[in-house]
Amino acid sequence: MDTRASLAPKGLAVEGDGAAVAVFWADGRVSRFPALWLADNRPETCRGEEGQRLVDAIELPEQIAVRRAAILANGIWVMFDCFDEPAVFDPAWLRRHALDPASRAERRQVPRLWDATLAREPLPAADYAAVIRDKAALLGWLRHVDRLGFALLQGVPTTPGAVCDVVSLFGYVRETNYGRLFDVVSVEEPLNLAFTALALGNHTDNPYRDPVPQLQLLHCLESAGEGGESIVVDGFAVAERLRREAPAAFDLLAKTKVPFRYVEPGSVDLRHAAPLIELDAGGELRTVRYNSRSIGPVDLDPDAVPAFYDAHRRFGRMLHDPAMTVGFKLRAGGLFIVDNRRVLHGRRGFGGGRRHLQGAYADADSLMSRLRVLERET
Amino acid sequence: MDTRASLAPKGLAVEGDGAAVAVFWADGRVSRFPALWLADNRPETCRGEEGQRLVDAIELPEQIAVRRAAILANGIWVMFDCFDEPAVFDPAWLRRHALDPASRAERRQVPRLWDATLAREPLPAADYAAVIRDKAALLGWLRHVDRLGFALLQGVPTTPGAVCDVVSLFGYVRETNYGRLFDVVSVEEPLNLAFTALALGNHTDNPYRDPVPQLQLLHCLESAGEGGESIVVDGFAVAERLRREAPAAFDLLAKTKVPFRYVEPGSVDLRHAAPLIELDAGGELRTVRYNSRSIGPVDLDPDAVPAFYDAHRRFGRMLHDPAMTVGFKLRAGGLFIVDNRRVLHGRRGFGGGRRHLQGAYADADSLMSRLRVLERET
Repeated sequence: MDTRASLAPKGLAVEGDGAAVAVFWADGRVSRFPALWLADNRPETCRGEEGQRLVDAIELPEQIAVRRAAILANGIWVMFDCFDEPAVFDPAWLRRHALDPASRAERRQVPRLWDATLAREPLPAADYAAVIRDKAALLGWLRHVDRLGFALLQGVPTTPGAVCDVVSLFGYVRETNYGRLFDVVSVEEPLNLAFTALALGNHTDNPYRDPVPQLQLLHCLESAGEGGESIVVDGFAVAERLRREAPAAFDLLAKTKVPFRYVEPGSVDLRHAAPLIELDAGGELRTVRYNSRSIGPVDLDPDAVPAFYDAHRRFGRMLHDPAMTVGFKLRAGGLFIVDNRRVLHGRRGFGGGRRHLQGAYADADSLMSRLRVLERET
Repeated sequence: MDTRASLAPKGLAVEGDGAAVAVFWADGRVSRFPALWLADNRPETCRGEEGQRLVDAIELPEQIAVRRAAILANGIWVMFDCFDEPAVFDPAWLRRHALDPASRAERRQVPRLWDATLAREPLPAADYAAVIRDKAALLGWLRHVDRLGFALLQGVPTTPGAVCDVVSLFGYVRETNYGRLFDVVSVEEPLNLAFTALALGNHTDNPYRDPVPQLQLLHCLESAGEGGESIVVDGFAVAERLRREAPAAFDLLAKTKVPFRYVEPGSVDLRHAAPLIELDAGGELRTVRYNSRSIGPVDLDPDAVPAFYDAHRRFGRMLHDPAMTVGFKLRAGGLFIVDNRRVLHGRRGFGGGRRHLQGAYADADSLMSRLRVLERET
């Protein structure tokens, strides 16, 4: 039981002929738990508090009512009309999963959106030597990725393949047709300057892939002398700005699937149609896709084309607005990681010299798992 | 140019003061192309027909009109008001990407939904010796996975790790905390029979993971003597049945995020909240999630709980309806692959003896890429 007195249960009431149990907490909060929800979450349906469940909801009786409930020394005791044995709930568990508005709001996690003003404070960064040695340092670095959608890592050995060692700090490389890692080698190409600027616009990687790469790491082995700054922009912040300033454009981008493709004749033919702004089932931002190199011809009724282009271009201009972007210079041994579902990256032109990066993709599930485990440990 | 006469352009009209070009095809179809769409898809904006684009739509002029258009020997010639040079479009390319309703409908791909009657025909299967030797056999097998969401493969060597060799026929293993592959070893446990039946209900794997594993392969190295049939059910067919029979329940499941989790204290803490029926931006089925072992306490307003359980249980019962399921016996050397976003799998109880499977996950992007490349080659 939770020992914090203010979170202790002070009273109970069985309501609505057993349809729900109301718990009155010491801090004044009242939480109502429907009988069916309680029956489905009895401790004995689970192997341990967060273990695998042993019962499918389809096995429960159609109608369930609570007969009696009481606060006992070992927890909140509930007798149902359909089970011979009572269930005993840990009050702290009930409080953590309570369904009243205040409890539900406490559990909601809102990402910290950012714009160019983020550069007024030190950029989210850590030192490689620290994160491989110290769990708290690693946790801090992973928290940056979770909250801001990007982070820098300094002092990574400039040995080829080191980017995969960084991935192994939190998860697993996602291998693709580009390999476990891929090389980005640039040299000065003055004849192509017109295209160079275009090719390095702010973008997300591989929108033609489903699932889209969630995390991208870029590790600098060698950097050009001048210029070549990396740019990042918070696609979620820009999308929310679009939602505020032009809600109709936002809605249009969220409901319009755009075909993306990447083709290497005879070997690769990756295609995926997905919106530039993807929302989840709750209407929250899930994935931003923006990549002028791999967008294909939009497949819309001709009458819908002008409004789509208006919205697309409005979003694209905002994604390149200097008020929204943060730049930094990646030097040899530097690495940055972006949440490719949220943060776009790009690169300013550079004056000369060779630049060699190695990149890798990884999924975010393992990173988030590692972060949660470290949060309990540190 | 497309040499098929019926798909040739017969006439053109510049409409709406240059806002669009109408193409009149020999087969009577009329396709309208907005000026902006044409300008954005000029052949010179791309490296080759499906190559990377070199221009971002934000770089186009705000207003674009077509001045003149004509059918020439080398293609459809279009002069814009904003570019010095005309663009010349391949008519076959325009036809393939045309925006009239008939052309758009032709491009729409509808999965073949199935139920228990699928078992009246031979199940989708191929022979390992054939698919490693013959591109047409591999293509046929991959088409089953694409269209039905599952397929069998016979005659896979019963050597540990062979499941990864099968993945390499079309893509890359997705490594997770379970490893590159995982062992499923079952022995008879009569004391646990009550739970055994529950634990093997029809389910999708790892809904607590984002991204969810898209493809799952299970390879049988050793099979129990009696029983132990594998079950598959088309989650999309069941979801569409729910949409027909109980549209309100379908809508509720599509908009309600459910928390899934898998925890190994001290090492793994995977969590993801997502709907049981996930729709894409166009309202089409994207992912079905059903896993009674990893579903957590639903986080809803108490008043919304009963309706959610009604919908959840209605869907769950349908997913176990024998009219919807197909069973087969996996023997040593047999393998099955499921599209884990669409097809649930389960297992009937078995009488005795040892059963050893090896499983692996993979992403579908590479499989679809391989399928498209093979379709052009064979």
